[in-house]
Amino acid sequence: METSGGNTISGKPAKYVFLFIGDGMAMPQISSAEIYAEALASKDIKIRKLGFSRFPVSGLTTTYDAGSFITDSASAGTALASGNKTLNGVVNMDPGKTEKFRTIAEYARDKGMKVGVVSSVSLDHATPAVFYAKVPSRGNYYDIGVQLSDSGFDYFGGGGFLQRTGKKGDQRDIFDIAKEKGYQIVDTREAFSALKPGAGKVIAVNETLQDSSAMPYDIDRAEGDLSLSDFTAKGIELLSDDPDGFFMMVEGGKIDWACHANDAAASIRDTIAFDRAIDKAVAFADKHPGETLIIVTGDHETGGMTIGFAGTQYATFFDKAGLQKMSFVAFDQKVLKPYKAETPAAKAKLADLLPAIQDAFGLSYDSLTAVQKEQLELAFQRSMGNKIERSVQEDQYLLYGGYEPLTVKITQIVNQTAGIGWTSYAHTGVPVATFARGAHQELFSGYYDNTDIFRKMAAAMALDVSSGSSVKVAAK
Amino acid sequence: METSGGNTISGKPAKYVFLFIGDGMAMPQISSAEIYAEALASKDIKIRKLGFSRFPVSGLTTTYDAGSFITDSASAGTALASGNKTLNGVVNMDPGKTEKFRTIAEYARDKGMKVGVVSSVSLDHATPAVFYAKVPSRGNYYDIGVQLSDSGFDYFGGGGFLQRTGKKGDQRDIFDIAKEKGYQIVDTREAFSALKPGAGKVIAVNETLQDSSAMPYDIDRAEGDLSLSDFTAKGIELLSDDPDGFFMMVEGGKIDWACHANDAAASIRDTIAFDRAIDKAVAFADKHPGETLIIVTGDHETGGMTIGFAGTQYATFFDKAGLQKMSFVAFDQKVLKPYKAETPAAKAKLADLLPAIQDAFGLSYDSLTAVQKEQLELAFQRSMGNKIERSVQEDQYLLYGGYEPLTVKITQIVNQTAGIGWTSYAHTGVPVATFARGAHQELFSGYYDNTDIFRKMAAAMALDVSSGSSVKVAAK
Repeated sequence: METSGGNTISGKPAKYVFLFIGDGMAMPQISSAEIYAEALASKDIKIRKLGFSRFPVSGLTTTYDAGSFITDSASAGTALASGNKTLNGVVNMDPGKTEKFRTIAEYARDKGMKVGVVSSVSLDHATPAVFYAKVPSRGNYYDIGVQLSDSGFDYFGGGGFLQRTGKKGDQRDIFDIAKEKGYQIVDTREAFSALKPGAGKVIAVNETLQDSSAMPYDIDRAEGDLSLSDFTAKGIELLSDDPDGFFMMVEGGKIDWACHANDAAASIRDTIAFDRAIDKAVAFADKHPGETLIIVTGDHETGGMTIGFAGTQYATFFDKAGLQKMSFVAFDQKVLKPYKAETPAAKAKLADLLPAIQDAFGLSYDSLTAVQKEQLELAFQRSMGNKIERSVQEDQYLLYGGYEPLTVKITQIVNQTAGIGWTSYAHTGVPVATFARGAHQELFSGYYDNTDIFRKMAAAMALDVSSGSSVKVAAK
Repeated sequence: METSGGNTISGKPAKYVFLFIGDGMAMPQISSAEIYAEALASKDIKIRKLGFSRFPVSGLTTTYDAGSFITDSASAGTALASGNKTLNGVVNMDPGKTEKFRTIAEYARDKGMKVGVVSSVSLDHATPAVFYAKVPSRGNYYDIGVQLSDSGFDYFGGGGFLQRTGKKGDQRDIFDIAKEKGYQIVDTREAFSALKPGAGKVIAVNETLQDSSAMPYDIDRAEGDLSLSDFTAKGIELLSDDPDGFFMMVEGGKIDWACHANDAAASIRDTIAFDRAIDKAVAFADKHPGETLIIVTGDHETGGMTIGFAGTQYATFFDKAGLQKMSFVAFDQKVLKPYKAETPAAKAKLADLLPAIQDAFGLSYDSLTAVQKEQLELAFQRSMGNKIERSVQEDQYLLYGGYEPLTVKITQIVNQTAGIGWTSYAHTGVPVATFARGAHQELFSGYYDNTDIFRKMAAAMALDVSSGSSVKVAAK
């Protein structure tokens, strides 16, 4: 691609390479975190840059896949990991699903480097999967889990598995298969802390899993619970004893999930948690200057997030987002679900939940406009399953996107009050930002495609991926 | 700022410097134009990069001003032109409005370089004004016009003036003042074509002005009418005979106006027209390699545009936007205004306008959802001034943003059908992209503030702006 920074290097290849992927993280997610970080500390109009947005090199990266200008995480991840575009939902196979792609992590492994894969969501989810699995559908979780144990990678850490014993629960436990392949499974905080270099191959699953076998949103993380930063630090500790270096992918996976649900506060807090994980790599790089490369990118934007909303025009009030104490998921689980369980729909009143809403989101009912009050009431009745006569046509998906109507309406109103807008519950097609620091960082400047990131990483590590984007292995 | 590409150069300063400002142009506007350009040519999922988005260097630029994370064009322009942050609405003065800032164009002029200012909107509008005027409010159009004639700049081209004889029409005609100061005023296509090097100081106003003394939207431009590209080419022709070189600012001003009105097709077409103007600079640079620098940036994002909409989820249909034949302004002027003038509100029927809507926007009423049909009917009745009983609370500003309800609802529905979302009728705070090509292009890589662009340009031209961002002159 003519505008990329080129894919050749001079000098020694990078020995320690980190690829950080913020799922659903484009400039709106980064910029909102930068504004929020400062808004909590002062009333000044300035931003507090994240660690990674201070990196010396930045680029812009297109994300469209083989079938749509709006990618999903499987096709976006395939592009990053293998340099090939494919269809939404496909993991490391071509659109016709007859060829399998070799990944940057596999090239690194075969060169003798250690490999780590870390994610705040389940380890068989699309973004971690694209580094070791090749399946026609991202939903083939069991197959992905089996392929994980076949990868030979040295360290997996973060969330758990979605189908440990298969879709119907009748297959061999993936943990047993992994143990047979030489993996140590660690799923308590104590055992995690005890892991030391020389531990061998490790699968470390967080003790607390919240939704879909993912780690909790950082906004919901209990004091003392492990964070993405802890899993990253442990990866560095375990992998850095190899004379051939390592390749480690770390995904901030719930930035995306929060944005699907239009929950800005949860997205921002997970973006900051992601940045803290990157800080661990920066500290390592400072001890290994000249041989460490850190790349930070997003796989796509999620939610059509904007820093601006029609109702607030040229103003923003990010301090309002700072009043939110839990994610939409925690509110669903801790407040709405119990309320629904104990309250007959006919007797349900929004007033019952207003104190809990105020406490969880800092949202004062009295401060709402008449329009917002009506929206909230309607969403509450929908969440309770009550039918409401409406004289106007309404698109329920546009209103609630398949989430709990009350909860998504609360976060939308909180966001709008803060001056944050959303246009979708899905991904969007705007290019993402890529940042780089360290050995051969200059490769990552310019405006290039997500498939180029594969080639740039290969160049930085001097991996022989000679046929460029068409590095394929025949299907079995 | 620690992440900028630095502000020092080695080698000869740039002799010919272009600053292109896409008003309201951030990544969504650029990316939508790239998708549209390809969507018209094929059904393939790929983008057709613009000329400027192929430039070898790209950067990311924050735009917040002294009072808000969401800037307006006056404070954003002040930052770009003078390196100082100020409040929304202020042109080259500090927030307290006691100090005046010196601009990059004035430094260039005083070094002996020729200076040109080109805009598709009126020449006294905020973005062109920040290069020559210093006023407490961007709305002081007459004062701005007078200061234009005092600038001594060599070439102004594009739109006209909003208050040639003052707010009340009782002041001396700015054209007379400008003539007295040695300017030639040109306002016909023939006289424009006849302008040749050696013409002296010129103010060239487009023969056709559409709204607020601006050139027409490119989508409305008649065959043979002058374009932004023509005004840019003429500037190059008139300014390039100076042995000391030139500085030229060219604004694509109606990208912003289209986005305020949530009219994606008009925005995209004006972005492409802006790119064609940049092509003229590129052709010039190819003849003057090593001494020409072209910078392209946006002053802010407008509209909260996203490439994705909840209703279309992961799909886009940009070919649908290509069916639009006129801007929202042209529809208002050519269709809605005459209809309103000749039809009593009580007798008005949306059905009367459906053929014209189909023709202007390619929008087939039959293809709409029930929700969209109701929205359109309601907007039509609002445009006709008819009261409608509604059982639900509605925020008229959120629905229509002060535009003709029918027209803005049509463009919103067309956009949504194409898969384009909007969150605001105002600006938003996401950072913009900056591109550079030519002498000292490397200064513009990285993630930096809009005030840094002033310093980087000064460095590229070796202008002595020794006190950096605090280059101020005492107020008179």
